[in-house]
Amino acid sequence: MMLDLDADRLFPSDPETRKIARALYESVAGLPIVSPHGHVDPRILLENVPFTDPAQLFLRYDHYVTRLLHAAGIGLGELGIPTRDAQGRTASPREAWRTFCENWHLFAGTASGYWLQHELVDLFGIAEHPSADTADELFDQISASLQTDEFLPRALFASFRIDVLATTDDPMDDLAAHAALAADPSFPGRVIPTFRPDSYLNPAAPGWADNVAALATWNGTPTADYDGYLAALAGRRRHFIDHGAVSADHGVLQPVAAEITRDRAEALFSEALEGRLDSEGAGLFAAHMLLESARMSVEDGLVMTVHPGIFRNHDTSTFETFGPDSGHDIPVTTTYVDGIRPILQRYGNDPSFHLVLFAVDETVYSRELAPLAGYYPAVYIGAPWWFLDAPDAVLRFRAATTETAGFYRGSGFIDDTRAFLSIPARHDMSRRLDASFLARLVREGRVDRPSAERIIHDLVHLVPRKAFKL
Amino acid sequence: MMLDLDADRLFPSDPETRKIARALYESVAGLPIVSPHGHVDPRILLENVPFTDPAQLFLRYDHYVTRLLHAAGIGLGELGIPTRDAQGRTASPREAWRTFCENWHLFAGTASGYWLQHELVDLFGIAEHPSADTADELFDQISASLQTDEFLPRALFASFRIDVLATTDDPMDDLAAHAALAADPSFPGRVIPTFRPDSYLNPAAPGWADNVAALATWNGTPTADYDGYLAALAGRRRHFIDHGAVSADHGVLQPVAAEITRDRAEALFSEALEGRLDSEGAGLFAAHMLLESARMSVEDGLVMTVHPGIFRNHDTSTFETFGPDSGHDIPVTTTYVDGIRPILQRYGNDPSFHLVLFAVDETVYSRELAPLAGYYPAVYIGAPWWFLDAPDAVLRFRAATTETAGFYRGSGFIDDTRAFLSIPARHDMSRRLDASFLARLVREGRVDRPSAERIIHDLVHLVPRKAFKL
Amino acid sequence: MMLDLDADRLFPSDPETRKIARALYESVAGLPIVSPHGHVDPRILLENVPFTDPAQLFLRYDHYVTRLLHAAGIGLGELGIPTRDAQGRTASPREAWRTFCENWHLFAGTASGYWLQHELVDLFGIAEHPSADTADELFDQISASLQTDEFLPRALFASFRIDVLATTDDPMDDLAAHAALAADPSFPGRVIPTFRPDSYLNPAAPGWADNVAALATWNGTPTADYDGYLAALAGRRRHFIDHGAVSADHGVLQPVAAEITRDRAEALFSEALEGRLDSEGAGLFAAHMLLESARMSVEDGLVMTVHPGIFRNHDTSTFETFGPDSGHDIPVTTTYVDGIRPILQRYGNDPSFHLVLFAVDETVYSRELAPLAGYYPAVYIGAPWWFLDAPDAVLRFRAATTETAGFYRGSGFIDDTRAFLSIPARHDMSRRLDASFLARLVREGRVDRPSAERIIHDLVHLVPRKAFKL
Repeated sequence: MMLDLDADRLFPSDPETRKIARALYESVAGLPIVSPHGHVDPRILLENVPFTDPAQLFLRYDHYVTRLLHAAGIGLGELGIPTRDAQGRTASPREAWRTFCENWHLFAGTASGYWLQHELVDLFGIAEHPSADTADELFDQISASLQTDEFLPRALFASFRIDVLATTDDPMDDLAAHAALAADPSFPGRVIPTFRPDSYLNPAAPGWADNVAALATWNGTPTADYDGYLAALAGRRRHFIDHGAVSADHGVLQPVAAEITRDRAEALFSEALEGRLDSEGAGLFAAHMLLESARMSVEDGLVMTVHPGIFRNHDTSTFETFGPDSGHDIPVTTTYVDGIRPILQRYGNDPSFHLVLFAVDETVYSRELAPLAGYYPAVYIGAPWWFLDAPDAVLRFRAATTETAGFYRGSGFIDDTRAFLSIPARHDMSRRLDASFLARLVREGRVDRPSAERIIHDLVHLVPRKAFKL
Repeated sequence: MMLDLDADRLFPSDPETRKIARALYESVAGLPIVSPHGHVDPRILLENVPFTDPAQLFLRYDHYVTRLLHAAGIGLGELGIPTRDAQGRTASPREAWRTFCENWHLFAGTASGYWLQHELVDLFGIAEHPSADTADELFDQISASLQTDEFLPRALFASFRIDVLATTDDPMDDLAAHAALAADPSFPGRVIPTFRPDSYLNPAAPGWADNVAALATWNGTPTADYDGYLAALAGRRRHFIDHGAVSADHGVLQPVAAEITRDRAEALFSEALEGRLDSEGAGLFAAHMLLESARMSVEDGLVMTVHPGIFRNHDTSTFETFGPDSGHDIPVTTTYVDGIRPILQRYGNDPSFHLVLFAVDETVYSRELAPLAGYYPAVYIGAPWWFLDAPDAVLRFRAATTETAGFYRGSGFIDDTRAFLSIPARHDMSRRLDASFLARLVREGRVDRPSAERIIHDLVHLVPRKAFKL
Repeated sequence: MMLDLDADRLFPSDPETRKIARALYESVAGLPIVSPHGHVDPRILLENVPFTDPAQLFLRYDHYVTRLLHAAGIGLGELGIPTRDAQGRTASPREAWRTFCENWHLFAGTASGYWLQHELVDLFGIAEHPSADTADELFDQISASLQTDEFLPRALFASFRIDVLATTDDPMDDLAAHAALAADPSFPGRVIPTFRPDSYLNPAAPGWADNVAALATWNGTPTADYDGYLAALAGRRRHFIDHGAVSADHGVLQPVAAEITRDRAEALFSEALEGRLDSEGAGLFAAHMLLESARMSVEDGLVMTVHPGIFRNHDTSTFETFGPDSGHDIPVTTTYVDGIRPILQRYGNDPSFHLVLFAVDETVYSRELAPLAGYYPAVYIGAPWWFLDAPDAVLRFRAATTETAGFYRGSGFIDDTRAFLSIPARHDMSRRLDASFLARLVREGRVDRPSAERIIHDLVHLVPRKAFKL
């Protein structure tokens, strides 16, 4: 069976509307990529060594893909994922790739399938469906491509036309890879870190006490010194800013900030370090630190992004065997209105404070995020995230938010990916969908054509740069 | 850039479906407007003096519009909104209008933008986009129009073909404006009040004790007399009915009614007056009074409408400076199934009792409102409200409710607006959307053409009159 | 007014997309029906006597239909529904049918209306709208048809091409009707029972103590013997399996399972039998038994289906007068992520355990069910259920789940009906909608044509057989 890319993919069915969408898309298809939030490892670009094979490239780090194969009853080891203790059989790359190809039909209609197809056709020139019959041939063909100069990470970075790429990093990361890249005159790209302090802010997070100790050590203050802890966080943020960071990212189960006294916060901090804090107290301290993080953002200018609503590591046995990010993070109901209010009460009207709110519970788009971003200058609506970063979901997002908040209160598209090779496919998808959405509004007489042309350009060029202060 | 109105706006993209939609729309486009719930000030029609300028007309009272400009970092004072204490600089109408025009692109794709465009083109004959360049010219052009006789409120009322217009009023309002309009032989329109008793029913509402005292004074009973309080409420409802009212409207955070004993209610009432009632007790009393209000509706025939799920005045600093209705009321999650049940247990099967349930949390449409209205003869599904009163949201509402409850269990369209000039645009939008929804069902073989013709006529003519007993 | 069936009904409006949908539909239109979950009474097929009249056929047992007439203010007695105590006037079949016909327009756009129209035209050759004028003629015409051999239940079963039909049965049912049908060489159909133990597992369910006693009697153990209770349940499941059952169905208000010790469970069981268990304890025991039911499914292989989120018998007065299933069961908010986790922690990775999760709160589709089924091999996404089993809702379901979970993690279509004659209409609807959804994806370049052809065949043939181990 043939594999190809429809030039009109994702455009509306109606021919007249499709024509408008195509023209809008073409006006922005060639613009550079801005990727202000993602999970690519900067060492890939620093080291610039070839990717080894398609299994490493498409399966090993992409739990969007491996989870669907797991759901079909295939063990993660059969997909080449090693266990934490390196026990048990792990399939070879060729075996893992074969298993993937045999199950290609499971990805039909999925977002991952869409991106994979784009990559296979557009980057590697594959013209046949992955299948049991074609698996070995595709493995060899892709592996051969990967050894060529044009598939070296830096060459791809250039050919993808990436203007800026943000990584996500531990607060104590020395950012040496970022520094080396910035100092390398042969690499003109802009690769910037993102401050991700969750496990330093929430006493219930694994490793919190060690992380606090590491902050103290770096800061030269006693671990139990609460002011030193705050100063160290501010200092590490400054370190990130000095390496180009523009944002700090907060992953929380529920987006709750709390206003408590300094004394109360200090007491909770002490109890947490002494291991005496119950889960309610830990939640309160974490909520306090979310508000403190907002304060720091107001002070140092880092954009604050919030990614809530994910129950991480839902399947304990897989987590214990394979570690985090193994495909069983599940969304939960989310609400922002009360929880985020302490931040907005203090800083919501400050246009220099940028607070980007994401969601995987799509009910908040029309109910909460569009109304909040339609009033508070600080609030930006995060692009559809995780499971919602998919064609139909993106159009639902646009329909749910635009009528209340317009086109200028969003974050711009966020690829949020670990899969470096999928970046162009994702941004292309976003541009096509914005073109489709706008084309429908043009066709329905709701936006005129010149306005749609301006808007799609702004959505690709201006909006993410504004939201992320780039 | 040109500004115009597409004759086929809001119709489906597919040409065949569009043709059906156009025909359905045209069959009802000229029908009179029924507006059974809204917020127009009746003194506008009583006094019949010219609107002064476009800023007063489009910005001053329309917090749908000002909130989006505020989100862009523009202070409300720059939009001509005075502070409560009249301190601080307030932009002149011309300055405010200029700021609005410079930011016209922020309204692209929004419901407010859609209505504004309709009004600018259809009422004022504007043919250019508002912008920095055109702001002054548009200001002058609109201001000049407003001085003509045809733009006097009563002339507009006639040209809009409004059959009946309901206002929303305080229970102690003397309704003199309504009485004067009804008594004026030169004004043939029907302008009726709506009883809105929230701040008389909920001890936690600001001013409750004063309001209760005012009821007692009017009734000639001691303030602490609970029976006198109930009698006074019934008496004020009668006063409203005598002035043409057909409904009583209840704005509540959560739609909760409660069945408690008379003794318990009386005790809570006393505690509330003595300032000893905690928030739980206040909630219980308010829930009791929601049930009592239903009882009164059964007795006096007023349609009971419920508008739940709005966190009012989310931004304390703006509220303190500019007062309520300044753009930061935010929807919250809503559920009806348990909370409204005490009312339905008593009166749900009484077809003479009309209970219209609105929502800003659109998840309740398919989950709760359509099933409830698809069984209880008393329940009517409120038209999409507030942020959901927008083209895509309205179509989602129709799709979410029709398959369960059909076309005959709704309230009919509600404009719910303070913006008098937007009334025709809003009703026109609703008719277009109903035509579009029905046209799709015709095209999909789900409703035949003659049935669709009957239904759209019923939706505009019959359904609101039935739901609101007009 | 004419009544007919559009050959292209439910297909997309765009002609090109419609053409694709039609071809996909036609490729599966003739495949046999698999109905793995429903509520048809097996004695209809065992006794094989004619249905008597259209009121008995379309109204008497279909509370989807009677509820909408009730909402219009028509008493259930007027629709021929007898009261529990057989007091009060009950309309004759002809009178009830006339009332229905007079109100035919109330069903426009509803799922019930769609199926009824299909049945009237396709089975009975009706060519006119039901109405006051045509009611008597249609009554006579349908009644006459019902007396012919081709309308005998078994003849219809054959003409409907039903491969397998599952009923829903009480655990203590002797399954004599199923046994007799299986033993009857003149009936080649496969009619299988489904184990539905809710009122044996939840101490708060009416009749629980009696049901437990009945289990004990059957098992030959004392009622208070907890191990005997578990053994009896396992034994009755075995009895069902011996009569062809493939699944056990669990209706719960919230889908909550709980892990407690055996001793705790035994204590709760004793307290429940002694009438000393409060509602919290009853909930905990029921949650424990949901987990125990999963364990039994792992052991005996019965597919476990969960139908949560319905507030049964919302209107007490109607329940008391007419009994359950009289049209006022109302959906509530549902969440699965925490509640179902104890089952998934134990058995979620066992591909031989099949757990089919349904929903009437459609927010869980994209937020929870697709992510869960996209990881756990045990989890299957239940087809849109109850109020969501309707054209637009089904397309929303597909759009909400496919991008995350693909096409192969669902239950396949479930008709879930008591209305035997509606089975072909419902399955035909499902096939049309799947064709429409796939056609859109083909047209949007997201699924290629050969893949779409494979997928629609799999959705009708393979997927339900796999999910239900048929």
